[in-house]
Amino acid sequence: MNIVVQKFGGTSVRNLECQRQVMQKVLRPYREGNKVIVVLSAMSGETNRLLDLAKEWTDTPDPAEVDSLVSTGEQVSSALFAMLLKQQGVKCRSVLGFQAPVKTNGAHGKARIVDIDEQKLKAMLQEYDILVMAGFQGCDDDMRITTLGRGGSDTSAVALAAAIDADVCEIYTDVPGVFTTDPNMCTDARKIDKIAYDEMLEMASMGAKVLQIRSVEFAKKYNVTVHVRSTFSDEPGTIVTQEDEIMESVLVSGIAYDKDQAQITLVHVQDNPGVSAQIFSPLAEQKILVDMIVQNPSKDGLTDMTFTVPRSDVDATLKTLSKLQYEIGYEELTHNLNVSKISIIGVGMRNHSGVASRAFQALADENVNILMISTSEIKVTCLIDDKYTELAVRTLHKAFSLEEGKHIE
Amino acid sequence: MNIVVQKFGGTSVRNLECQRQVMQKVLRPYREGNKVIVVLSAMSGETNRLLDLAKEWTDTPDPAEVDSLVSTGEQVSSALFAMLLKQQGVKCRSVLGFQAPVKTNGAHGKARIVDIDEQKLKAMLQEYDILVMAGFQGCDDDMRITTLGRGGSDTSAVALAAAIDADVCEIYTDVPGVFTTDPNMCTDARKIDKIAYDEMLEMASMGAKVLQIRSVEFAKKYNVTVHVRSTFSDEPGTIVTQEDEIMESVLVSGIAYDKDQAQITLVHVQDNPGVSAQIFSPLAEQKILVDMIVQNPSKDGLTDMTFTVPRSDVDATLKTLSKLQYEIGYEELTHNLNVSKISIIGVGMRNHSGVASRAFQALADENVNILMISTSEIKVTCLIDDKYTELAVRTLHKAFSLEEGKHIE
Repeated sequence: MNIVVQKFGGTSVRNLECQRQVMQKVLRPYREGNKVIVVLSAMSGETNRLLDLAKEWTDTPDPAEVDSLVSTGEQVSSALFAMLLKQQGVKCRSVLGFQAPVKTNGAHGKARIVDIDEQKLKAMLQEYDILVMAGFQGCDDDMRITTLGRGGSDTSAVALAAAIDADVCEIYTDVPGVFTTDPNMCTDARKIDKIAYDEMLEMASMGAKVLQIRSVEFAKKYNVTVHVRSTFSDEPGTIVTQEDEIMESVLVSGIAYDKDQAQITLVHVQDNPGVSAQIFSPLAEQKILVDMIVQNPSKDGLTDMTFTVPRSDVDATLKTLSKLQYEIGYEELTHNLNVSKISIIGVGMRNHSGVASRAFQALADENVNILMISTSEIKVTCLIDDKYTELAVRTLHKAFSLEEGKHIE
Repeated sequence: MNIVVQKFGGTSVRNLECQRQVMQKVLRPYREGNKVIVVLSAMSGETNRLLDLAKEWTDTPDPAEVDSLVSTGEQVSSALFAMLLKQQGVKCRSVLGFQAPVKTNGAHGKARIVDIDEQKLKAMLQEYDILVMAGFQGCDDDMRITTLGRGGSDTSAVALAAAIDADVCEIYTDVPGVFTTDPNMCTDARKIDKIAYDEMLEMASMGAKVLQIRSVEFAKKYNVTVHVRSTFSDEPGTIVTQEDEIMESVLVSGIAYDKDQAQITLVHVQDNPGVSAQIFSPLAEQKILVDMIVQNPSKDGLTDMTFTVPRSDVDATLKTLSKLQYEIGYEELTHNLNVSKISIIGVGMRNHSGVASRAFQALADENVNILMISTSEIKVTCLIDDKYTELAVRTLHKAFSLEEGKHIE
């Protein structure tokens, strides 16, 4: 049997009118003779309403109880949508996480899918033509409800598609697809037709919040082709797939940025073996996500250590390192909140040199000073003064001719 | 281990403040060293909100999906309450219907409990000191969520108490207990200390809506002592128990009334064998609940057949019987909406004659005309003109000295 997986987000199911629109999307593959698995998020606003209740009840809500609480959001939207479909005479039913079952580990609030019962799903698809799955949720070995974290319904959809070997996993959202950069920042931004998993991972982690990162990792691992597209139009969106499926590789796929960054510098650190561990282990223990790290060449046994953290972690970072001044041995601790991170992303740069230098030149031509640089195989990241964010994004977008969808020459 | 089951209704858990009050009730037996199973309803208003959503979505919502939808109400209240308890350092968790599991048949919306896994519950009580159960819900063999019908949390509580052989099943509600009659109608109404299951069944079915009828049937079947009491006071309420546990039996326990009645009469029915079946079978097929039935002595082969139905069923009753006039053979079909049913209830009357006559005399003294009479072992019911309802209730309450809690002389 041919199986199509479709996922719809909270905005798409937020009321009856929207759910009717979603129904038309679902009925199309059904009428073409496919079995359909529809994965739904909670109606928009509902998850936050429930989390607010938990916060009202206690400052430290038990994570297992929070999962039982918030999972009701998807339970409501899937039951309502199944009613709507059933009224059309479709053989369908809602399926909750524990019913599929979507087995996860016990990490409440950020559970990872361990197993999906393919046989049970297939048996249900024999009996029903459409399964309406509550996204975001699963259950652990003890049958307690777990949730997969924000955006977890994307991961639910991809995992289901992987488990059942679906022909396609369509992620419907309120944007038309993945763009070369943020269209709000650069009017030349263009929708990308195809993007490789690795590029998508870099784009997503930089704030292009179209897909939950974990769902992309899952798709990559199980080689699920994901089609990100709009609920509100019939235009094709962006296909996220294997690198070698993308025939015409481009040099650079997109420009991402992240304004939620802060730069921390330890001035004149004693450059002894193990000093990096002394600095970063205490931060890791506090779950502070350190991103870019740069160590200047040592001079007279002293070096400067600079790195970035999310702005919300600045206070905790400064507090932690201040306490350790004697132990680590540094002269001064400085920080800069007015920074932003710009990344040039593309699997094409693996085989082409010159991407970094072309980026630096373009920024230099606009007098944008680069504070830090870090590079990976498919990404070049620059830290800059945040007042230049918009200018830098536009400049780089133009420098790599992204508005034209230019292929590698 | 000593186990106490406590059930709290929707009003008792409707907000944080109320849940804190409930917590004090729950912590008492816990601190005395008991294990506690708390059964909760949905926060008041929530079930109706969800049912309204279903009605907005479709006129004919699928019953299985309605169950999945409305069961979220108890899921939310049990998760929130467990958070609150956990914050007090109590070893506790919420338990949903499918987790216990509370196994039911597949009759969605009015499912009946088939089995509760005593071993699993006992194992959970080894690990946790308090279990917060979502009432009203269970699951069928296919793991689909079922609900037990309005007031079903009472039945959940009694069934759990029966399964685990609890010492007591306390049903907390917003009234102090079961009264000799409706206190709104008769200021002399008195709280009953102990009432037999059968009496409670008659009281409940007559509109004294303190306990779901099914929960009382369940309690009777499994001999669970139920204590109905107020969430908002520490006074003891009413103990519902076996007849022989009630040492000082009273002649009459209470006076119940039901204003939601209509009287239907078929005038000059051909009194042939099988005519009753001809009249009542078509009504039963339409699920019309016929209550009192009186057939006058036949004269010239003709009789009058009079019975009562709920007012909401009058139209359907008249329509059905009109169609069958030729078949049944009656002259005229009349109905009277202005009637009300008054019942005198008491297991004591089993061994005492004279209850009915005393009642008739008391009503006659007040010039209340009796339209129909029906009696059972523990009940005398009179149909009267509904404008006399209040007068009749007060008169009978006084005639049997219910304000004094008089015992059988």
